[in-house]
Amino acid sequence: MEQRRFGTAARCGMTDITGDVEQYLHARAADGIQDGFVCIYSPHTTCAVTINEGFDPDVQRDISTFLSKLVPENSGFRHSEGNSDAHVKVSLIGASCLVPVIGGRTALGQWQRVFLCEFDGPRTRTLYFSFIRAE
Amino acid sequence: MEQRRFGTAARCGMTDITGDVEQYLHARAADGIQDGFVCIYSPHTTCAVTINEGFDPDVQRDISTFLSKLVPENSGFRHSEGNSDAHVKVSLIGASCLVPVIGGRTALGQWQRVFLCEFDGPRTRTLYFSFIRAE
Amino acid sequence: MEQRRFGTAARCGMTDITGDVEQYLHARAADGIQDGFVCIYSPHTTCAVTINEGFDPDVQRDISTFLSKLVPENSGFRHSEGNSDAHVKVSLIGASCLVPVIGGRTALGQWQRVFLCEFDGPRTRTLYFSFIRAE
Repeated sequence: MEQRRFGTAARCGMTDITGDVEQYLHARAADGIQDGFVCIYSPHTTCAVTINEGFDPDVQRDISTFLSKLVPENSGFRHSEGNSDAHVKVSLIGASCLVPVIGGRTALGQWQRVFLCEFDGPRTRTLYFSFIRAE
Repeated sequence: MEQRRFGTAARCGMTDITGDVEQYLHARAADGIQDGFVCIYSPHTTCAVTINEGFDPDVQRDISTFLSKLVPENSGFRHSEGNSDAHVKVSLIGASCLVPVIGGRTALGQWQRVFLCEFDGPRTRTLYFSFIRAE
Repeated sequence: MEQRRFGTAARCGMTDITGDVEQYLHARAADGIQDGFVCIYSPHTTCAVTINEGFDPDVQRDISTFLSKLVPENSGFRHSEGNSDAHVKVSLIGASCLVPVIGGRTALGQWQRVFLCEFDGPRTRTLYFSFIRAE
């Protein structure tokens, strides 16, 4: 599994990592990769990964802002680090996602992009990239 | 990856697509498929896929109705298309799901069915079906 | 796919099943498993699986308690069994998760553990464990 690092800029926000998925596939051109999924996995417990609209940056802001309202930082949590909201959001969004690959290239929908969802930044994050074959 | 199309009937609702997963596996009977997962992937950013109870149609209605209350259409979103609620729901539910296959047949739990979750319909939707081998 | 059973102790709560994932991999040491994912799949419609922090038990309690507030048991649901809140939570959290494996061993992040999320217990639950190869 290849590890790639990403810097995040704020406590909460979404970082478009689609270019990295494309670079990853490009770098593996000699490996005979055809159809399947790039699995993006977050080994962190306060950031997640998702696929959503990447055309209008307002969508990313709307998602981040809404999640912050849905899971307020101060919800009477017991965990002493004060970031339980981030942990809740990670379980809602998920620690991994599957990016479709056809003929060795990403086969995302027209408006889809892949995002790292930061819920307790800013930090440097590491994601695992690997390829799962599909038939 | 095989593409299958589905028509949805309302702005929000769940469509049972389990029959299509079974048909897909049946059509691939000659491919030596035994154990693994059918991955159902949505290339859209306003519809998702999930696995949940399919016996009592009230469950689907309860899930759809609750999600509409949880993420109201009018939540002060900035995105000008007015469907940011749908984008939020897609990241909460997920763009893909894995349907278990044992001996070439779906191995869902007794009450489980596979659903397309429409959040900005009615529309014609395309889902990608593929098989991932497991050991 | 291997089936493993787990007893849950309350209506809602999280059970750490990471030890079972490690045991599963250990038992398969002769199968040449190197890199990929253990897929944990729940065939139930009122319990889910997730990956989150396992160091401070307060995090698990915070997640469970917050989800119970987010999706109240009594939300005007129609489903007569009275457990629609559990069904909603399953679609929010997900019926399966992927646990990374490198060199035949779990490669979770430093604070990550794998959890069964019970939403309508106490019950005996069965989860499917299988290995998906990645390249």
